[in-house]
Amino acid sequence: MQLPSALLEQAVSEFSKLPGIGRKTALRLVLHLLKQDTEKVEQFTEAVIRMRKETHLCQRCFNIADQQLCSICSDMHRKQDLICVVENIRDVIAIENTQQFSGTYHVLGGVISPLDGVGPDQLQIDRLLRRTVEEPVAELIFALSPTIQGDTTIYYIQKKLQPTTIRFTTIARGIAFGGELEYADEMTLARSLQHRMPVEQLRM
Amino acid sequence: MQLPSALLEQAVSEFSKLPGIGRKTALRLVLHLLKQDTEKVEQFTEAVIRMRKETHLCQRCFNIADQQLCSICSDMHRKQDLICVVENIRDVIAIENTQQFSGTYHVLGGVISPLDGVGPDQLQIDRLLRRTVEEPVAELIFALSPTIQGDTTIYYIQKKLQPTTIRFTTIARGIAFGGELEYADEMTLARSLQHRMPVEQLRM
Repeated sequence: MQLPSALLEQAVSEFSKLPGIGRKTALRLVLHLLKQDTEKVEQFTEAVIRMRKETHLCQRCFNIADQQLCSICSDMHRKQDLICVVENIRDVIAIENTQQFSGTYHVLGGVISPLDGVGPDQLQIDRLLRRTVEEPVAELIFALSPTIQGDTTIYYIQKKLQPTTIRFTTIARGIAFGGELEYADEMTLARSLQHRMPVEQLRM
Repeated sequence: MQLPSALLEQAVSEFSKLPGIGRKTALRLVLHLLKQDTEKVEQFTEAVIRMRKETHLCQRCFNIADQQLCSICSDMHRKQDLICVVENIRDVIAIENTQQFSGTYHVLGGVISPLDGVGPDQLQIDRLLRRTVEEPVAELIFALSPTIQGDTTIYYIQKKLQPTTIRFTTIARGIAFGGELEYADEMTLARSLQHRMPVEQLRM
């Protein structure tokens, strides 16, 4: 797709670098911006550049933060001794949106995956271990991907913390709400049989 | 969806203003930018703001241009007396990509549509009429939407130009390549029967 303007071409090529945005979509977005007032476009680019330059990672949990501590860590109404361990910031946002969790988080930045070259040192595991020493921690809830890499990461952290009085839990695994049994994989189905629960809990 | 950072929220809200981008997609794009180096993000925002500030409309055909005249109007290898009349810049790009057209364009900025409050004065029709006086024009090819509004616009321009020696044509209407007859609307089907063409032309 040849464009009649080099500046248009540059903007389209920058937009196409974003995930899931092809050249056609990029062109639609750029032509939309072209029709807006200059101030509107400046507002857009300033919001993007400020987000990149002025946010940083929370010094305690590595969630995104406007201050030194993120809004969750600095909220004293939340249970500070309950830490939910997640892979990335998107997971924090997803769990926050359930409005069911009132503890704090720890963002690892991924899971241990030797094949992808990700070892414990590339993740914020050391900082998590240090938190368990510096802060009183009652429970670690692992909300990691239900994969071998996720399970390995749980196992590694748990082992590093032994002996301890900290309770280790993981979010429940089973058939998703609205999911169909026949399409569930065998591993999920087998585990959901193994970890069957009293029917009464469905109403909780 | 609540976000843990006001700056993140602002960037997501700006991205969600783009057409076809919901909050979830916006968040994915913003988190992608957050992971990039600051220079990469600056490169992105600068390309966008330069595109908005430094491009303008071609003084002759109203296509997007980096100079006073667009790259098509200033290309002297193109037939200057053959003008393809289109609604918007996207149409120029679409036709250019067929590599079948070697004339110039005139971008109207829309079609006459009284119900949407678009009259001839909101469009670049006067400038097109002036072009037919100032430049030698042999043919106007109308490549407008095949709608009542598009047809009205063709009729209006043609009428304004009478009497004239200019040839008026419109791009062919019919069943799209790969389209299925049974799903074509009656109007299209009726017209494609009416304007049937010798089979030999299929091979041209």
